[in-house]
Amino acid sequence: MKALVYHGPGKKSWEEKIKPVIKEPTDAIVKILKTTICGTDLHILKGDVPAVTDGRIIGHEGVGIIDEVGNSVSNFKKGDHVLISCITSCGKCEYCKKAIYSHCERGGWILGNTIDGTQAEYVRIPYADSSLYPIPADADEEALVMLSDILPTGFECGVLNGKVKPGDTVAIVGAGPIGMAALLTAQFYSPAEIIMIDKDDYRLGLAKTFWATHTINSATENAVEKVMKLTNGKGVDTAIEAVGIPVTFELCEELVGAGGHIANIGVHGKSVVLHLETLWSRNITITAGLVDTVSTPMLFKNVLSHKLDPKKLITHRFKMDQIIEAYDTFEHAAREKALKVILTK
Amino acid sequence: MKALVYHGPGKKSWEEKIKPVIKEPTDAIVKILKTTICGTDLHILKGDVPAVTDGRIIGHEGVGIIDEVGNSVSNFKKGDHVLISCITSCGKCEYCKKAIYSHCERGGWILGNTIDGTQAEYVRIPYADSSLYPIPADADEEALVMLSDILPTGFECGVLNGKVKPGDTVAIVGAGPIGMAALLTAQFYSPAEIIMIDKDDYRLGLAKTFWATHTINSATENAVEKVMKLTNGKGVDTAIEAVGIPVTFELCEELVGAGGHIANIGVHGKSVVLHLETLWSRNITITAGLVDTVSTPMLFKNVLSHKLDPKKLITHRFKMDQIIEAYDTFEHAAREKALKVILTK
Amino acid sequence: MKALVYHGPGKKSWEEKIKPVIKEPTDAIVKILKTTICGTDLHILKGDVPAVTDGRIIGHEGVGIIDEVGNSVSNFKKGDHVLISCITSCGKCEYCKKAIYSHCERGGWILGNTIDGTQAEYVRIPYADSSLYPIPADADEEALVMLSDILPTGFECGVLNGKVKPGDTVAIVGAGPIGMAALLTAQFYSPAEIIMIDKDDYRLGLAKTFWATHTINSATENAVEKVMKLTNGKGVDTAIEAVGIPVTFELCEELVGAGGHIANIGVHGKSVVLHLETLWSRNITITAGLVDTVSTPMLFKNVLSHKLDPKKLITHRFKMDQIIEAYDTFEHAAREKALKVILTK
Amino acid sequence: MKALVYHGPGKKSWEEKIKPVIKEPTDAIVKILKTTICGTDLHILKGDVPAVTDGRIIGHEGVGIIDEVGNSVSNFKKGDHVLISCITSCGKCEYCKKAIYSHCERGGWILGNTIDGTQAEYVRIPYADSSLYPIPADADEEALVMLSDILPTGFECGVLNGKVKPGDTVAIVGAGPIGMAALLTAQFYSPAEIIMIDKDDYRLGLAKTFWATHTINSATENAVEKVMKLTNGKGVDTAIEAVGIPVTFELCEELVGAGGHIANIGVHGKSVVLHLETLWSRNITITAGLVDTVSTPMLFKNVLSHKLDPKKLITHRFKMDQIIEAYDTFEHAAREKALKVILTK
Repeated sequence: MKALVYHGPGKKSWEEKIKPVIKEPTDAIVKILKTTICGTDLHILKGDVPAVTDGRIIGHEGVGIIDEVGNSVSNFKKGDHVLISCITSCGKCEYCKKAIYSHCERGGWILGNTIDGTQAEYVRIPYADSSLYPIPADADEEALVMLSDILPTGFECGVLNGKVKPGDTVAIVGAGPIGMAALLTAQFYSPAEIIMIDKDDYRLGLAKTFWATHTINSATENAVEKVMKLTNGKGVDTAIEAVGIPVTFELCEELVGAGGHIANIGVHGKSVVLHLETLWSRNITITAGLVDTVSTPMLFKNVLSHKLDPKKLITHRFKMDQIIEAYDTFEHAAREKALKVILTK
Repeated sequence: MKALVYHGPGKKSWEEKIKPVIKEPTDAIVKILKTTICGTDLHILKGDVPAVTDGRIIGHEGVGIIDEVGNSVSNFKKGDHVLISCITSCGKCEYCKKAIYSHCERGGWILGNTIDGTQAEYVRIPYADSSLYPIPADADEEALVMLSDILPTGFECGVLNGKVKPGDTVAIVGAGPIGMAALLTAQFYSPAEIIMIDKDDYRLGLAKTFWATHTINSATENAVEKVMKLTNGKGVDTAIEAVGIPVTFELCEELVGAGGHIANIGVHGKSVVLHLETLWSRNITITAGLVDTVSTPMLFKNVLSHKLDPKKLITHRFKMDQIIEAYDTFEHAAREKALKVILTK
Repeated sequence: MKALVYHGPGKKSWEEKIKPVIKEPTDAIVKILKTTICGTDLHILKGDVPAVTDGRIIGHEGVGIIDEVGNSVSNFKKGDHVLISCITSCGKCEYCKKAIYSHCERGGWILGNTIDGTQAEYVRIPYADSSLYPIPADADEEALVMLSDILPTGFECGVLNGKVKPGDTVAIVGAGPIGMAALLTAQFYSPAEIIMIDKDDYRLGLAKTFWATHTINSATENAVEKVMKLTNGKGVDTAIEAVGIPVTFELCEELVGAGGHIANIGVHGKSVVLHLETLWSRNITITAGLVDTVSTPMLFKNVLSHKLDPKKLITHRFKMDQIIEAYDTFEHAAREKALKVILTK
Repeated sequence: MKALVYHGPGKKSWEEKIKPVIKEPTDAIVKILKTTICGTDLHILKGDVPAVTDGRIIGHEGVGIIDEVGNSVSNFKKGDHVLISCITSCGKCEYCKKAIYSHCERGGWILGNTIDGTQAEYVRIPYADSSLYPIPADADEEALVMLSDILPTGFECGVLNGKVKPGDTVAIVGAGPIGMAALLTAQFYSPAEIIMIDKDDYRLGLAKTFWATHTINSATENAVEKVMKLTNGKGVDTAIEAVGIPVTFELCEELVGAGGHIANIGVHGKSVVLHLETLWSRNITITAGLVDTVSTPMLFKNVLSHKLDPKKLITHRFKMDQIIEAYDTFEHAAREKALKVILTK
C-alpha cells in the first residue's frame, strides 16, 4: 500500500509500505477513506517530536471502512464505516479508569507517533472497540474527520479546561484550525464575548463568520490594551492559547483577569516565562494537556444533527496521492488561505 | 498608641502613631490582644511589595477586643472578642458576590498593605461585619491567631486549589509556617502520602511530628529522584509550592504527575520558567492566588473542637513591645528554630 | 399610597396603606415603576403559604426608582433606577457566606411573604446594597422585571441544578412562565433536545417559537411513551418540574434516565410519591429549592446585550390600579392565553 | 462443584452445579477462596428482586484464584489472586465511557442477579480485565472481601454522593454493615460530627468504636429532636440512608438542613413519601443509585497501607459448606450480634 513516511527532520515521502496486519485480538485494520493533516504533523516533520523516528507513517485523523478485526473486537465488523480517534485507549488501565484516556498505559496518542498512522491506505487500530466510533449510513464523512482530533481538542483543552461559562468573556489567541475549533465549541456555553486574536486578517475575517464577537490583529494593534478596554480593565475570564509559542502564551498571561483561566492547547517546543511576580495574587488557573476525547460522542451527535458544522473548517480538498501537494498548501496556510485540507481515497 | 511602621526598604520602627478612628459606618476599631509576623511582612520590609509605602503600619493577623463600631455594624459591639481576617470583604461587590473575597473591589488584602495593619495597639477594620469573626468565651486565642491568614491560606491555596483527595500522593515544597499549615490541613482529605521537602532538618523533623509520611532534605538529597522512586515513576497528584522562589516552583514542575496539580502558595518576586515543552501534554493544572477565607468558619470550628491544633506552629512568644526582637527571631528562623512567633499585648 | 393587600384565603384588595419608611440604615425605599404577578402569589391567595398573614402587601418582583436610602447604603442614591431581587440578602451571615442567599438568616424570600412586597406604589427593601441591581439609562425596564424572580429561578433551580450540558436531552414539565424561563435559559448550555410537556396547545405552540425541539400535550398523548421513543428507551438527562403538583413530579420520575437529574422548580403544597423501589438503582439526583439569584448579574448582562429576550414572556399589560383585572387575567391563563402580565405605574 | 442456589422466595440450597466454563474471550473462571453474604442477598431470598429466577447461584462478593482466562484477557493469568467487583464493566459502552459502570450495557450488577454468582466453588467473571483487581502476595484477603461491594458502596453512594466535606455534620441512619462502611469511609473527608442512628444498642456501641461522634437509638429516643438540638435547629449537612425502608428514608427528610444532601444507599422494595410541601424551598439534593466502583483502587490502596481496616466489620467466620448456617446467623443479626460473615473455602 501507499503511505506518507517520515524520514527524519524535513524529509517525507509518499511511498510503498507493507499493509498492516492484526497483531492482537483487540486490533482492527481500517481502510482509510478520508484523512487530513494536523499542525502536529508539521511539528513532527520539523523534528520537534523526538519519539517519531525514521520510517514512521504519520497522521492520526481519519475515517474509513473496517477491513478486518481481531477475535475479541465486539463493537465492529468488516465493512463498518468508522471514525478513528487520535487517542487510543485500552479501557482497563489505571488512567482509562480515571477517564484520562490520553495517558492510557497501552495507548494514548500513539497513532502516527509511536506506531504507524493514518496517512496511508490502511492503518492498524489497537483496542478498536474503545478507539473507533461507528458512522451511520447517511452521515457526512468529511465533516466527521474533524472529530478525530481538532474538535474534541479545541473543546476539551480549550473550552472545558478553560471553564467557559454563560456570560463570560473569552479570548482565543490563534485563529488556525485549532483556535477555530475552540471558537466553534465555546459557543456551546454561550459566552457573552469571544475575542479572536491573530496576525492574519483573512483568518480573523473567517472568525467573524464563525461568530467571534471581536477580532484583534496583534500585528497591527495592541492586543492587551484593546482587551483591557473591552473588559473595563478587568481582563478576560478565559484566555485560550492555540498557537504553541512563548509570545502567545505570555500574551494570555497579560489578558487573563482575576479569578480567570488560561487554557493551553498549543504544542510547545520551548519553555515560556510565567510571570508569578504578578500572577501569584491573581487567583488564576492554568491548564495544559492532551485531549481525552471524552466529549467525542457529544460532538458526534451535534455534527449528525447539524448543530455543529465543522465542515466550515475545510478549505482545500485533494486526492490521497496528492498528499505532498496538500502538505505544501497546509505549510503555507497564510499564502493559500488554508485551514484544514481533506485527503480522499 | 504604639505601632510597627515601615519606612522604606530595610527600615522599620516601633513608634508612636495616632490611634485610628471610625471613618465609615461599616468600620470597627479593634484593640489588639495578640498578633504575629507573616513571611509576607518580611517581603514588604525588603521592598518587594511596592504598594506598601513609607509610614504604613504593617501586619494583617491578630485577635482583639472591639473598641468601637460604626453605626451600621450589626454583628459586633464594644467588648466583643474577635478574630481579624487578613482579607477585608464588603460583601456586596461583583467579586464578593462570586465569593472571590480576595479581590473585593473595596477590600481584599488591604490590612498592612494599602491601609494600616495589625502590628499596633489598635487597628481600624473596614466592613467589620464581614471581615471579623466572633470568638467564644473559652477559646484559646493564641491558636486562633493562626486563622487570620496562615491556616486558610495553606488550606485554600494549597489543599483545595491542589484538589487533594483521599488516597493521593502530595508533595509540599517548603516546611515553613505556610507549608506546615498546608501539611496540617491536607489531612482533612486523607491523602495516602504527604512528602515534605525542605533544606532544614529541624523543620523536616517537625513535619514528621505533624504526620508527614516522608521527608526529603533537598540540600542533601535528589528530591526528584526520590519522589519518582516513591511514586513508581509517576510523580505526585499534587505539588504544593510554599516558598516563593523560582527553584522551588520549578521543582514542582518536575514532581507533578500526569493529571496532577501544582498549587502555588508562595509570594513570588520574580518570574519562573514554565517548561511547557514537556508539560503541554501532561494534563496538569496550575493555580496561584490569594486566600478568599471561605474556609475560615470551618477551620474555626475545628480549632474549637480540637480536631485541628495550629498552636503547634507557635515556637516563640514575645510581648508586643518586643516586636523588633521578634522580627529578628523570625528573620533568622533556621538559626532560631522558629516557625510562628506570637506577640501579646 | 395604594397597595394590593392579602386578607386571608380568597380575599385581596387594592387599598390605601401607609407609605413605608426607612427602619434600618441598610434599607432603601423604592418607588415602583413596574411590577408583575407570580404563580406564587396565586398560591398565597389560596392560603397555601401560611407565613403570609392578613394585611400583608404581596408581590416580590419589580423595577423602580430609589426614593430614599438609609445611612449605610453605599451602592445606591435617590433617583437611581433599580431592579428588585425577590431574594433579600444581608451578605454577612453564615448562609450568605456560602452564597445560599435564599436562606439568608435575616433575609431570603421575605418580600410579599413575611414583610410587605412590591405590588404597591412604594416598597421598603432591606439590605438594599446586596438586594438591588442598578439599571443603566437606556435599558428596557419591562424586560428586566422578568429578572426579579422568574429568569434566575428557571435558570438556577431548573437548568443549573439539573446540570444541563451540551448534547443533553431535557424534558420540561409545565409550559407556564417558569417553565418557559427554564426553556429560554437551558439554551445557554446547548442541549440537543428540549421537550416541552403541557396540556395547553397554545402554550406548547409558544414553546416551539422559543426553540423547544419537541412538544407533547400530556392531555392527549402518552408523555412517557413518547419520551422513551425519542430517547431510545433511555429516558432524559434532565427532567425539570415546573408545575408543583404530585402528578407532574411523578411524571418526571418516569422520564429521567439512568445517571440523570430531576430538578424541581414548582411550589408544592402536597407531598409526592417517590418510587425508590425502581429509582434506588438508577443513579439519579433530585434537587429542590429556592433561587439564590447568584446568576442575576449574568442574566442581566445578557438581557442588556439582547442575547436573552425575556420580554417574549409578557402577554398582557395593565396600569397598576387595574391590578384586580390583571389578577383575573393571570388566574385564567389558559382562557386568556396569558403568560406574564406587566403592571405599570 | 457446590453452590448456593435460589429456588424461589424463601427457598435456597447448597447443592451440586456444573462448574462454569469460558464463554467469551473476555471471561475468566475464578476459584472462590472467600466470599460473604450481602443484605441484598436477603432481599433476593425474600423474592424482592424479580430479575433473579429459580436456579440462580447468588452472591456478588469474593476473592479467589484465576482458574482459566479467555483469549483476550491480558491483565490476568491462571494462578493470580484476584478481588471480584460486584460490578461488571465492559469498559467500552456509552455508560462505561462516562464511568457509570453500574449501568454498563453488557454488565453492571449482574453477578448473582442475572448470571450465576460467587457463593460457589467457581464463578465465571465476564470482562475480567475491567472487573477484577489483582491482589498482592502478602495482602489480607479477608479484609479485601469487604471491597467487592460494601466499602465502595458506602463510600460512593453515601459519602461521595452525599458530598461530605471537612467540618460537616453527617447523620447515618442504619448501623448495619453498609452504614458502618459509610461511617468508616466518611472519615476520609473529616466531618466534624457523625451521628449514627439505629435501634440496636450493640451496633451503636460498635459505631462508637468506629469513631461515630454521637449515637441515637431511635427506638427509645426522638431522633429528630436530638439531631436538631445537636445542630442548633439547622439539621445535618448530609443524611445517609442505609436501611431501605420508608420510615428511615422519611427520617432523613426530617434531618437534612437547608442546602444539605440525602444520600440513599438502601435497596428499597416500596415507594416512600417525599415531603415536597416543606422540602421544595430547602435547597436540598437527593441521590440514589448503584455503586460504580470508581473508588475501588483508592480504597484498595488504603486497605493495603492499613489506613482503612474493614476487617473490623467481620463478626463471624464459617467454612463455605456451612453457608446455610452462615445465612441463619446473618438473617438474625441482632440476636447473633452479627455484621459481616466470612465464608472460606
